[in-house]
Amino acid sequence: MATIKLVLIRHGESQWNQENRFTGWADVPLSAKGIEEAKQGGQLLKDAGFTFDIAYTSRLKRAIKTLWLALEELDLMWIPVVRSWRLNERHYGALQGLNKAETAKKYGDEQVLIWRRSFDTLPPLLDESNEYYPGNDPRYQDLESNQWPKAESLKTTIDRVLPYWEDVIAPDLKAGKKVLIAAHGNSIRALVKYLDNISEDDIVGLNIPTGVPLVYEFDENLKPLKHYYLGDQAELEAKMAAVAKQGSAKQ
Amino acid sequence: MATIKLVLIRHGESQWNQENRFTGWADVPLSAKGIEEAKQGGQLLKDAGFTFDIAYTSRLKRAIKTLWLALEELDLMWIPVVRSWRLNERHYGALQGLNKAETAKKYGDEQVLIWRRSFDTLPPLLDESNEYYPGNDPRYQDLESNQWPKAESLKTTIDRVLPYWEDVIAPDLKAGKKVLIAAHGNSIRALVKYLDNISEDDIVGLNIPTGVPLVYEFDENLKPLKHYYLGDQAELEAKMAAVAKQGSAKQ
Repeated sequence: MATIKLVLIRHGESQWNQENRFTGWADVPLSAKGIEEAKQGGQLLKDAGFTFDIAYTSRLKRAIKTLWLALEELDLMWIPVVRSWRLNERHYGALQGLNKAETAKKYGDEQVLIWRRSFDTLPPLLDESNEYYPGNDPRYQDLESNQWPKAESLKTTIDRVLPYWEDVIAPDLKAGKKVLIAAHGNSIRALVKYLDNISEDDIVGLNIPTGVPLVYEFDENLKPLKHYYLGDQAELEAKMAAVAKQGSAKQ
Repeated sequence: MATIKLVLIRHGESQWNQENRFTGWADVPLSAKGIEEAKQGGQLLKDAGFTFDIAYTSRLKRAIKTLWLALEELDLMWIPVVRSWRLNERHYGALQGLNKAETAKKYGDEQVLIWRRSFDTLPPLLDESNEYYPGNDPRYQDLESNQWPKAESLKTTIDRVLPYWEDVIAPDLKAGKKVLIAAHGNSIRALVKYLDNISEDDIVGLNIPTGVPLVYEFDENLKPLKHYYLGDQAELEAKMAAVAKQGSAKQ
């Protein structure tokens, strides 16, 4: 039986990445650099001969636009695209919209690092009257009200991503479909932790570069055989180091 | 009960519209002008306060890109998008790829006008070895082989568009969903002929302008109450005249 392949791609840089603000479920567009990253990601997939039958993404425009740009490069604009809130970024609660460096100055580098990189610490919760509360957003009205997060840790993010893997994506892969997922740093971490059985301690230090296709190869039971990023490896390491540096007041 | 509204938008100018070639199911991108038209269409919808719950389009990139650009203007990139071959342009058979003016010189203006504007005359059929035969295209492998056209008249186009209206779009509208359709000159004509009960003689002379939102309002039984185009009416008439002129060797 042929190897099953899955490709994950984290959205390109957003306008708030650039401004160093906590984003989460805030619906921020790609920056000009992010648009270029997404196109390059699509070009890398094209050059490596990838094609896809279906694509999954979140309900956030930075992931959707990344997918659109990649599909345009791949000449695959016609494939079905499914947008699920379960692939959204981790919800950053009351930190959403705050500048990361300012938050670090106010609460200290250490507290910000805990919020960003602890496995199970929730950021300060949103109030239900907050504009970022998902219950106030038309795009999340198909969810049950107990599914609207007021803040998420990486742990609670994983808890809502994994059912989507089990119910939707894994069955597609087993049925022989070629799947592309355009998502976010923490929804991709959720999948990577599960697929490679990474510890809670290690997953918080694992950085996913923006706009670089991450290829997983599986046997017929979806046991991972290997994974690798496409493209230039030196460029890749520079990108991962840049992501790791975010959230420091010194930046 | 509130009036039910539906918006149809024909894709902006494609590169082959510009080169005056028969396009049909050939998957040609928008021209720079077409991209602008699609953005303007989205802006007109936004300015008029429209919002949507779901969008339908064809499997052809000029319609898909038009939809994407309109959704981006509307800040509705997150709504579900369904791509159906039943909303594709009329298949132009063996004429696809030919320059319209050259075809007119070869066969005469009259024959070209018959092919373009007769209700039920099929263009010359494609051979199954032709690159444009849908059976050779991965995007149509989910169709039954007897659904792959070798050429279509407006009549046979209508025959495959209407089941989609009845099975998919009309039920959505009756369920209260706000629907946007980004499609093609002849798939939109198919719907317009059905909705307004236009005669076979009259529908062939009805020109749909590119990139201009066409709004239908219905009662609760989907009986049309009225329809109108958004935007500047003088600009609209110029666009409709330009479409009508295509296919003449004198152009």
